[in-house]
Parts: sequence; C-alpha cells; structure tokens
Amino acid sequence: MPVKRSVFFVSDRTGITAETLGHSLLTQFDSADFRHETLPFLDSEDKAAKAVARINACAEEEGEKPIVFSTLVQDNLRDIVMRSRGLYLDFFEAFIGPLERELDLKSSHTAGRAHGMANSQSYTQRIDAMNFALANDDGVNTHTYTRADVILVGVSRSGKTPTCLYLALHYGVFAANYPITEEDLEKGGLPELLLHHKAKLYGLTIDPDRLEQIRNERRPDSRYASIRQVRYEVSRAERLFQLNQVPFINTTRSSIEEIATTILYGAGLKRRFF
Amino acid sequence: MPVKRSVFFVSDRTGITAETLGHSLLTQFDSADFRHETLPFLDSEDKAAKAVARINACAEEEGEKPIVFSTLVQDNLRDIVMRSRGLYLDFFEAFIGPLERELDLKSSHTAGRAHGMANSQSYTQRIDAMNFALANDDGVNTHTYTRADVILVGVSRSGKTPTCLYLALHYGVFAANYPITEEDLEKGGLPELLLHHKAKLYGLTIDPDRLEQIRNERRPDSRYASIRQVRYEVSRAERLFQLNQVPFINTTRSSIEEIATTILYGAGLKRRFF
Repeated sequence: MPVKRSVFFVSDRTGITAETLGHSLLTQFDSADFRHETLPFLDSEDKAAKAVARINACAEEEGEKPIVFSTLVQDNLRDIVMRSRGLYLDFFEAFIGPLERELDLKSSHTAGRAHGMANSQSYTQRIDAMNFALANDDGVNTHTYTRADVILVGVSRSGKTPTCLYLALHYGVFAANYPITEEDLEKGGLPELLLHHKAKLYGLTIDPDRLEQIRNERRPDSRYASIRQVRYEVSRAERLFQLNQVPFINTTRSSIEEIATTILYGAGLKRRFF
Repeated sequence: MPVKRSVFFVSDRTGITAETLGHSLLTQFDSADFRHETLPFLDSEDKAAKAVARINACAEEEGEKPIVFSTLVQDNLRDIVMRSRGLYLDFFEAFIGPLERELDLKSSHTAGRAHGMANSQSYTQRIDAMNFALANDDGVNTHTYTRADVILVGVSRSGKTPTCLYLALHYGVFAANYPITEEDLEKGGLPELLLHHKAKLYGLTIDPDRLEQIRNERRPDSRYASIRQVRYEVSRAERLFQLNQVPFINTTRSSIEEIATTILYGAGLKRRFF
C-alpha cells in the first residue's frame, strides 16, 4: 500500500509559490500518493480559522497529519494556521531570519508580492512579448523577424508554439516561430527568409514515434501523420540544423519549462523581467 | 544608499523553483537592490565547481556575500556549492528532513523533477488546453463554447488573451474568450451566443485610464483609444455583468497570475494537472 497523504498549500495571495515549493519537495517521494488542495487568498483571521477547520477535518477523516506548505507572512495569520493539526512547513520562517541578518534589513512582512504586478513597464513588456508570439506564430509575419530575440524552427507539431508562449509569458522574450514545410525540406538548405537571421535560429526536433502519435490525434490516418512522412521530415530537419550549425533540442521527453529554459540559456537570451 | 546585493539561483534543472522561491523572499526587502543570476542545469561536479568560482568572483568583486538560493538535491553537488563564499539557502535541507520523518519515507534525492514532464497524458492536456485557447481567442469559434470550462468576457484589451493562455499552460483549463463589441453594448443584454453558457462566464474589467493608455499604445489617437470611448465601453460592460450576475474582476492592478488564480478559484474550475 503506498503512503497516502493530503497536502495543503496555504497562501495569502495566489498560492503559486507555496505550490511550487511543495510540489518540488513532493516529487522527492514518488512512491507516495498525495492529494493536493490549495487555500489561496487567505488574508483575514476569519479565513485563517476556516483553513484550520478544513485541515483539521481532513486530519480527523484520514487519521493522518496533513502536510501544510505555507507562504503566509503576516504573523497573526501564521499564528492561527500553525496551530492546525497538520505538519506546518513554514517557508518564510525558514529563510527570512538568515536573510534579515545577512542584509541587515527588516523584512516588510507584506502579503505575497511574488506574483503581484511588479510595475506597469514589465507588465507591458510581457504582454508585448505575448502579442508578438501570437502574431508570429507559424511563419505568417516573417517581416517582423528583425524584432525577434529568437526564431524557433521545426516541423509541424514539434513544440514551437507552446515554447514561444512560455518564453513570452515568463521571460518577456520575443520569440517567433517558423514551421519547416515539406517544400523547404525538399529544397534543402535554410529557407531564404531565415538566411538573414541565422544567429537567431534555434531548432526543435522530436522522436518520430512521438510525433506520429501527436499528429494522429490531430489528423488521424492522414499522410501528414504517417510514420513514413514523420520520419522523413524529422531526419531532414535534423540534417538541416546540423549542416547550418543551428543549435537544436529534442523536445520528446522535456516539459515546456525545460525546453524554454534550455533555449533561454543556450541562446544567451536576455529575460526582460524577473 | 540602498543595500545592493547579488543573488544566485542554483539548480540542477531549470532553476524555476529556485527563482520562484527566492524571488518570493526578496520581495520582502523592497528597499534593497538585487542583481539576479541563474545557474541552471548544474548537474555535474565540474559545473558545481564553476558555479562556486562564479559566486566567489562576485563576492570578491563586490566585497559582500552573494545570496545563493539552491534547490540542488544531489549531495555531492550540494556539498560543493555550499562551500562557496555566498550565503547558502538550501530549500531541500530545510524541509526534506521533517517530510521524511512525517511520511516515514526516504526521499529519492533525484534531480529536479518539479518542472519535468510528469506524464504524457498531462502534457497532452496542457497542449490541448493551449490550442483551445488559441483557437478560441477573440470570439471566432463560438461553436466550441460547449467544450470550454470558462468563457472570459470583456471589452478589447481588458486582459482576456493572456489570462486564457495562463489558465491553459498552468492549469490545463479550457478557457475561451469573447470580446464584447460596441454593437453588443448598444443592444444591452448578454449577446445571444453567450446566453446558453451563462454559468461559464467570467467578466474582466479595467480602469478607463489604464485602458486608454493600453489602447493608445496599439492605435494612437484613434476613437478606439479615446477616453470617452473607453469610459463608455467600460461602464456599459460592468453594468452588463452586474445585471446578469456575471462575476467579474478588475485587472488594472493585478498580474496575470493573480487574475488567473482568482478566476480559477472564484469559478470553481478544476485544474487538470499539478
């Protein structure tokens, strides 16, 4: 029987930091079976008391201590939730002291600004980057490549669009994408449009078996989704990258986060906000 | 003079967890001026030694201890980086012990799976949700509203598209969006297309001054961007939400994360992966 346990993420704002921390730690116990529950926007003593009631009811029902990951910073709220019957893991408590001593500053104890709106300039850059990704998806607006920080190149369904959007939303990077067509592959050589932007290119590739599966979900039993076609496109595209010294990444077993960060650092891109 | 300090985010994988946690703590010291540097994919002793050299060079140059936020889990790598001249704040060390004791399990000490690819099913759902958001942006595919988990409604540039994409990428939620047109506002009442999906609607609104600014960046000095037009649209849209009991959120001073999570919990949406 695997260990089963309820886990609460408690936050005075979005809960994203608490979830990130908790999730990261829980992946270290992959034999266990965790049930997740986020209690966000916990910004009053009343809501804190309700959270405690919820955690205690869960402890009662399951006969086990729930795990509570907390990013609460306001002392009155922490004092309440800390007294629940869960194992209280206090993110701020653990690190804010050493930071205060090292910086010789008092922390503000202000609720959750990690995912608040930092300033309207970085917000605008983020939205601009997103609009750029949307407008430059699938090679329609190639005249804007001069504005791009990076141009992702790959065959259809190799992961270009989600990667561009992630780069935009998380790093404010202007990412365009160019889908390599069969025509491009037959001609060989880099497409004319890309020749002027060679330094900005980053290739995506994917295992043929996985691509066949993805394309079949989209257009079942088509030539487009056939293993023969997929193998042809993938091997030609990889050859194109190699011949032209375009760096490339295989996306098959990577998450969008891993692909995006690999490209961010691999291509030496500058993030526009933190 | 504000306190200035260099901050390193050290990770064996993407660095996203270290950045999220560190950033969250640093916002508690808003008078200080931090310089950020991420050292990701630190997965060998050689790379760990290089990171130490980089941190030490920075300590030397600045005459201050850099702050090092680490999510390293492999003992041999942690042992190396821990010996740098920075203040080493170890996310795993702080919590993995209490978790092991509570769960009565040993942690796997396996490198960074928090932002790895959990499984291909949740990956597919994420991509499906993203494709859904892209296909249902700006009210073009209204016949697919039956598949939507939520339909965001608001005037042009009130924040619908980034919110839909965030909901898709982070929660696997199928979010469509419907831009309220001037024609809709003149008619009054909910647009015909939305009447059948009333329970799925969530409104976005925004302060007229901010919307004027955003629209002016897009189409300077147009009627579309005029304060008169913007005021008219916003007040009519809010009235529409109120009359039809559509819950709504003002996006003016919120980040995309805050808007998305408010809607996620406010509308009781089910996230498709963690």
